[in-house]
Amino acid sequence: MSHPVAANEVKNYEADDISQYESEQQLEKYPSTYTVGCPPRKRFLKEFADGLKETFFSDDPLKPYKDQPKSKKFMLGLQFLFPIFEWGRNYNLIKFKGDVIAGLTIASLCIPQDIGYAKLANLEPQHGLYSSFVPPLIYAFMGSSRDIAIGPVAVVSLLLGSLLQDELDPINNKEEYLRLAFTATFFAGITQALLGFLRLGFLIDFLSHAAIVGFMAGAAITIGLQQLKGFLGIEKFTKQTDIISVMKSVFRPFPHGWNWPTILIGTIFLVFLLVAKYMGKKNRKLFWLPAIAPLISVVLATFFVYITHAERHGVQIVKHIKKGINPSSLELIYFSGPFLGKGVKIGIIAGMIALTEAVAIGRTFASMKDYQLDGNKEMVALGTMNVVGSMTSCYVATGSFSRSAVNYMSGCQTPVSNLVMSVVVFFTLLLITPLFKYTPNAILSSIIISAVIGLIDYEAAFLIWKVDKFDFIACMGAFLGVIFASVEIGLLIAVFISFAKILLQVTRPRTTILGNLPRTTIYRNIEQYPDANRVPGVLVVRVDSAIYFTNSNYVKERILRWLADEEEKLKNKNIPQIEFLVVDMSPVTDIDTSGIHALEDLFKSLQKREVKLALANPGPVIMEKLHASEFVELIGNDKIFLTVGDAVMNCAKKSKEDV
Amino acid sequence: MSHPVAANEVKNYEADDISQYESEQQLEKYPSTYTVGCPPRKRFLKEFADGLKETFFSDDPLKPYKDQPKSKKFMLGLQFLFPIFEWGRNYNLIKFKGDVIAGLTIASLCIPQDIGYAKLANLEPQHGLYSSFVPPLIYAFMGSSRDIAIGPVAVVSLLLGSLLQDELDPINNKEEYLRLAFTATFFAGITQALLGFLRLGFLIDFLSHAAIVGFMAGAAITIGLQQLKGFLGIEKFTKQTDIISVMKSVFRPFPHGWNWPTILIGTIFLVFLLVAKYMGKKNRKLFWLPAIAPLISVVLATFFVYITHAERHGVQIVKHIKKGINPSSLELIYFSGPFLGKGVKIGIIAGMIALTEAVAIGRTFASMKDYQLDGNKEMVALGTMNVVGSMTSCYVATGSFSRSAVNYMSGCQTPVSNLVMSVVVFFTLLLITPLFKYTPNAILSSIIISAVIGLIDYEAAFLIWKVDKFDFIACMGAFLGVIFASVEIGLLIAVFISFAKILLQVTRPRTTILGNLPRTTIYRNIEQYPDANRVPGVLVVRVDSAIYFTNSNYVKERILRWLADEEEKLKNKNIPQIEFLVVDMSPVTDIDTSGIHALEDLFKSLQKREVKLALANPGPVIMEKLHASEFVELIGNDKIFLTVGDAVMNCAKKSKEDV
Repeated sequence: MSHPVAANEVKNYEADDISQYESEQQLEKYPSTYTVGCPPRKRFLKEFADGLKETFFSDDPLKPYKDQPKSKKFMLGLQFLFPIFEWGRNYNLIKFKGDVIAGLTIASLCIPQDIGYAKLANLEPQHGLYSSFVPPLIYAFMGSSRDIAIGPVAVVSLLLGSLLQDELDPINNKEEYLRLAFTATFFAGITQALLGFLRLGFLIDFLSHAAIVGFMAGAAITIGLQQLKGFLGIEKFTKQTDIISVMKSVFRPFPHGWNWPTILIGTIFLVFLLVAKYMGKKNRKLFWLPAIAPLISVVLATFFVYITHAERHGVQIVKHIKKGINPSSLELIYFSGPFLGKGVKIGIIAGMIALTEAVAIGRTFASMKDYQLDGNKEMVALGTMNVVGSMTSCYVATGSFSRSAVNYMSGCQTPVSNLVMSVVVFFTLLLITPLFKYTPNAILSSIIISAVIGLIDYEAAFLIWKVDKFDFIACMGAFLGVIFASVEIGLLIAVFISFAKILLQVTRPRTTILGNLPRTTIYRNIEQYPDANRVPGVLVVRVDSAIYFTNSNYVKERILRWLADEEEKLKNKNIPQIEFLVVDMSPVTDIDTSGIHALEDLFKSLQKREVKLALANPGPVIMEKLHASEFVELIGNDKIFLTVGDAVMNCAKKSKEDV
Repeated sequence: MSHPVAANEVKNYEADDISQYESEQQLEKYPSTYTVGCPPRKRFLKEFADGLKETFFSDDPLKPYKDQPKSKKFMLGLQFLFPIFEWGRNYNLIKFKGDVIAGLTIASLCIPQDIGYAKLANLEPQHGLYSSFVPPLIYAFMGSSRDIAIGPVAVVSLLLGSLLQDELDPINNKEEYLRLAFTATFFAGITQALLGFLRLGFLIDFLSHAAIVGFMAGAAITIGLQQLKGFLGIEKFTKQTDIISVMKSVFRPFPHGWNWPTILIGTIFLVFLLVAKYMGKKNRKLFWLPAIAPLISVVLATFFVYITHAERHGVQIVKHIKKGINPSSLELIYFSGPFLGKGVKIGIIAGMIALTEAVAIGRTFASMKDYQLDGNKEMVALGTMNVVGSMTSCYVATGSFSRSAVNYMSGCQTPVSNLVMSVVVFFTLLLITPLFKYTPNAILSSIIISAVIGLIDYEAAFLIWKVDKFDFIACMGAFLGVIFASVEIGLLIAVFISFAKILLQVTRPRTTILGNLPRTTIYRNIEQYPDANRVPGVLVVRVDSAIYFTNSNYVKERILRWLADEEEKLKNKNIPQIEFLVVDMSPVTDIDTSGIHALEDLFKSLQKREVKLALANPGPVIMEKLHASEFVELIGNDKIFLTVGDAVMNCAKKSKEDV
């Protein structure tokens, strides 16, 4: 082949640019010094085992057991399952003091919240309290997060209630509804424990952060709107959760359907709660104020209703909470029959969402205090606590955002704070539930409203907007889905968008044209570095992803299109045509058979166009596979270079020799 | 901070290695010459539009329309929809000659195949012929592949028959079965056309090559086994397609249930067909031999049965094929009622599989003759032809592997060969179908067996084994699923494994430790290049993937684990501890909010360990997002370097200054 113009140009270029940086001698010597390495092939089973290990045991949990005597191994296994044996050994009075204070604080916060959240799940108030007694107790022994506060939470309660009432009416089929709730809780626990046990914890990472932010904010607003029933004292209220139905329910009975004494009580205490919250945020020393404000409100409001008999003026009250601790509910779980399947389905959904919330909380605080959290172990703990919970009349419990933050700020040290909370709830159930009789519903609504406001993370949403517009669309999609349709639809949208993003990522990887930074051998993206020069006669393209079946065709066609675009640009100018195509493989971490076929097709197409193909810096996996598939033999071993610089220099030399 | 040992070591290292390659002066000057570029921010809508364009219009189909007069635009649009107006303008007698020969050859091949394939779909033989008349006719006008041969194919026929008979019995509910078949065909066409029209053609890429190889081979064996009914003349045969049921059906009636005259006829012609196939493969000039062998067999066998009246000795014959061309079936399609949903479901599955096959064929031959194929346009053509087909008594047609290869080898030039074939089938339907009355079923079975053997691509399977073990598992999973369970199960396994592979890819990206190649500033994977040296006091890690929500946690924890492993190794040696962690971001093509959170967490964790973080070569998108999220301000702008070499040199310098 001979292109006199091309060769000439390349020669000039070489003389002008490269020699300033490196001497001609180096240029000759350099490419021969290093060839692209191909590591010794691993045996199939070894390779496969390594892959499995990295996927499922990337945190290497068995490392401490290595070379230990049997008794030590047993102890380590016990500590693995029950971390209490690990941190318990260094437990002391100072830590205990922190835990007691934190435990008492979150207990005062959880009691009124529990009663309200149980209502979101269409359950009786005592089930909320039950769920703050048994699950935290189990978690204290098995959990490894030091800051999480366990119990019922708003979003999961809403989701569970919403899914359950699609199957059964909570008023007309009260008993079956309760049984289905326990069934779902049981299978939520099984799902969580199994995910952890099978080390599939990474599955929850498939819900993107952006989708979660949107979903949570939507759920918070939906929950807030639901509270308008109690807050305004409306008797007839829609069962739908979308904003339009709720607004109709709110404004249709106006003004006679609104109970003004209720609104008065609700507003006063809501203002009190919000002020307390604001002060707690402004002055971190006052963190206890928002933490105990709910209980104070409940006590004051209950006392007020009791002495004024406001319930006779239409102020709705809690009326009755069953006294005594959790009864057994094992015999109520459906292990057969038509509700089994429904329970499993609801359990899986609620379990996954509960898990997402708990793991997010656990990770947040672990990174704040800089300790490692084993996600899979955590899931086994959460799953076990829900399985036991389902047999003791609890519904799905998980980590609560608001209470965990309070727990952290009150100075908790270990899961003992959950134990303390659990004991307080135990005495509450045993002794003082009858006192809640006169508690007005409006107070519970105010408490829930002030609690869920914290779930609306507008700062995160703004950051998402700034960083990634596509993520923002995912966020808004989930948000609007929850608000205008339902929790399930919002969740579906969140999952769907998250997956669409993953698929898009693997289908349309970026490809970039590289140029030479003057006076260096470095090649960089010409869009990012306007100084970078194209090398005449050579087109350097970088593929920014593994080449798999999902994108192999796109990558091949995109490279050919870069070439065609480039050739069109050069057509009318007096510049040499492209003679060499260098593909920078540095970011290509893996390739499969489809990818190799695509490279072969690319090579054939280039041959017909009289353009030579060279590869720069393929990684070890790529080299191994290119050898196995004999692609190296096809394009020639001398067409594979250590760096883009080597490849371009070699092309330039070849071109010179041709003349 | 001061680590005398570290500084000393780094100094020595510098003196020994770097200075041989670059002068000290350059070392000082060099990092300051280029800073990491951050391209001007694109406006949101522009960015979004660019993203959409790259995803859905990556082939830039509107480019030729730019700056053209209206009449030209209309003409281009017409040519886009009906490529016949494009290639038709250069059509000439020489091309026509090639097309006629190819058309006649594939017609002779398709007629006996069609009759057999219709049986796989539990339809009457004429429907197979109908489907080789109308769809190829439409395709000739709208299609752009020059080599594909359109008509019913084995795998889709089997799949369709298998899906349909799950809903309706093909014998007892003959009429409804036929109507459901047309309904499914209609929606298969709609699915295909919609995918193309919405430019979602890339969705079919989500079925991996390996899974398709396995699925096809499994389907071929299943189809072959099904033919044992006709081949052995067995009367009672299972409806299941799994190998165990089929084997029971085959061997239970042995020997009296086997019809020996049938076996004799079948075996003779199967041997003839296989020999013809072998000779055609050995000597490419004899390509016509395997192409016309089936028709010759049919003619000979029919004649033989006619004169010997073998049907009276239990040799099963075709008996009756309805004469005349396609009747209308528009009124038979279910547009409402309970079968609508089922038809849609079956149509979507069959349509997608048909599409996968047609696009794979189209791409293969386009790359052999080096012309571009617009996948989305092709889908619209295939969809339209099936929609029209469903209204004219055809069932799902697509591109046939075996006939397309024959078409190619017979020297076809344009889709006119499909037109020729269509005309031949038209006359067959009109005139000679009654002659097929005495055709023995055994011959059709032999023809199908010899045709589907070509679908077993053991060479591809072997290549997959050599290149990628995980892919091979996917391949075998689909293969065994089809053979031992059913076509649907095999397909499900193929889809499931393909998705699992995608998800694995995005969850567990590779991370690599880089080392310095002596006498260069190049940093490479130390596993691939045993020469590469670690730089004392500095750990260089490369992340080989975009950092997204799916892997951000893993990436963070993996980097920290590399650090911990490294520190443990160094603990007992007299080597400086790690002071700097350099993350090579070259392969990181994108990052989302979760990814940025992970980097922030990483930074905080490193701060607690007194290790400094530096980034090398972040791309334009990354830089933009790191700026937007103020991460650059967090770690300091001077911690972001153009190359790993710069970063390491800078760290070494800093360390020296500290002393």
